[in-house]
Amino acid sequence: MSRPPRALFFDVFGTLIDWRQGIARESEAILSSYGHALDWLAFADDWRARYQPTLEQVRSGKRAYEKLDALHRENVRPVLARHGVTDVDDAMLDALTNAWRRLPAWPDVPPGLARLRERFLLAPVSNGNISMMAMLARFNDFHWDAILGAELADDYKPNAEVYLAACAAFDLAPDQCVMVAAHTYDLKAAAALGLRTAHVARPDEYGPGKGEAAPGMVVDWAGADLVDLASRMCP
Amino acid sequence: MSRPPRALFFDVFGTLIDWRQGIARESEAILSSYGHALDWLAFADDWRARYQPTLEQVRSGKRAYEKLDALHRENVRPVLARHGVTDVDDAMLDALTNAWRRLPAWPDVPPGLARLRERFLLAPVSNGNISMMAMLARFNDFHWDAILGAELADDYKPNAEVYLAACAAFDLAPDQCVMVAAHTYDLKAAAALGLRTAHVARPDEYGPGKGEAAPGMVVDWAGADLVDLASRMCP
Repeated sequence: MSRPPRALFFDVFGTLIDWRQGIARESEAILSSYGHALDWLAFADDWRARYQPTLEQVRSGKRAYEKLDALHRENVRPVLARHGVTDVDDAMLDALTNAWRRLPAWPDVPPGLARLRERFLLAPVSNGNISMMAMLARFNDFHWDAILGAELADDYKPNAEVYLAACAAFDLAPDQCVMVAAHTYDLKAAAALGLRTAHVARPDEYGPGKGEAAPGMVVDWAGADLVDLASRMCP
Repeated sequence: MSRPPRALFFDVFGTLIDWRQGIARESEAILSSYGHALDWLAFADDWRARYQPTLEQVRSGKRAYEKLDALHRENVRPVLARHGVTDVDDAMLDALTNAWRRLPAWPDVPPGLARLRERFLLAPVSNGNISMMAMLARFNDFHWDAILGAELADDYKPNAEVYLAACAAFDLAPDQCVMVAAHTYDLKAAAALGLRTAHVARPDEYGPGKGEAAPGMVVDWAGADLVDLASRMCP
């Protein structure tokens, strides 16, 4: 039996945060003030679809690390064009970029985090940058022990350095840390480095029935939501 | 008139934490179990006296950045010898190093931070490492927005990069950030980079009457303690 875990590392977008409904709602609030009426969920999906290809440029070394805020701002331009928005200005781009700081948690997350916090150190290990994570925590009243993740490593998940930098920041060996995510690719990368893994089901992340209802690998823990995971991890 | 500040950066040891009484008490708890009876306050003072000379080796480039935990562990050995403790073992060194994670806040700090948090982003910008700051926050129930400071910059205050990395992590210009400290040298370094400055009086930091009762420079705000500072900054 391995040592009991000391810290939980959380993926944020999708795992804790309903980015799809949130971006649709925030984009509507911003762009309707310019007189636009789009398919807001499609707009959110199109913007998010550019996420992994852009991060891959950094992960592969083709471009230097930049904060996710900067990549979001860059990526929203072609998405706006595709949806017929041509009156783009800096204020619009700023507002849309900052929409990622005002996204709602899934309802089980606040009680789940509160319970897990009684037993473990908690930190986001997200591809989002420090300021984005800090503002999302304010918006949703999360209480993190530290903000770890991509910006600490100047790289993006699932590259190894992001996970290893998080373990090192807490002075912990990988097997004392648990990666918590709704995405098998994230958990696979963490497990390969010796971290333990916890899957949270988010079957509707990308729309009804479009999300991971179960992990696509063997994990140490799996929960139907974060409260369920907490009850399994804090028996 | 400059822009209103958005974030407060806190020095921790001395400014928020009574390290002297805390280290004396923790060292007594640890070393008395080995049968030692020292002058505990003198022991704390001697250990702390090695702090700046060791940090200066890193700041000057003579040695690579290591976490403050590692420097504390290294420095406590000659202090133990000086106080006649010769039965040093790894468990003793670990316990003494970790004593820096169990130190009490000055009594005005929890209410002061709570009030300041209503208006500003709050982060430690300490020479302490991330895990040390996270555990001190648990011990004292601080709620930080992020843990910034030396480990983010791989350097030690008052070198510029520590302050600038903190501003950059929050996407803020220096004049939107306030360094809060009980030490003029820290505030001077921050002010030289364009940060705003707030002094907190800690007249007894190094013993009765041995601490900064007032700043040795012109500052933007000065408080008799953190509650007083909060009432000046949040009128």
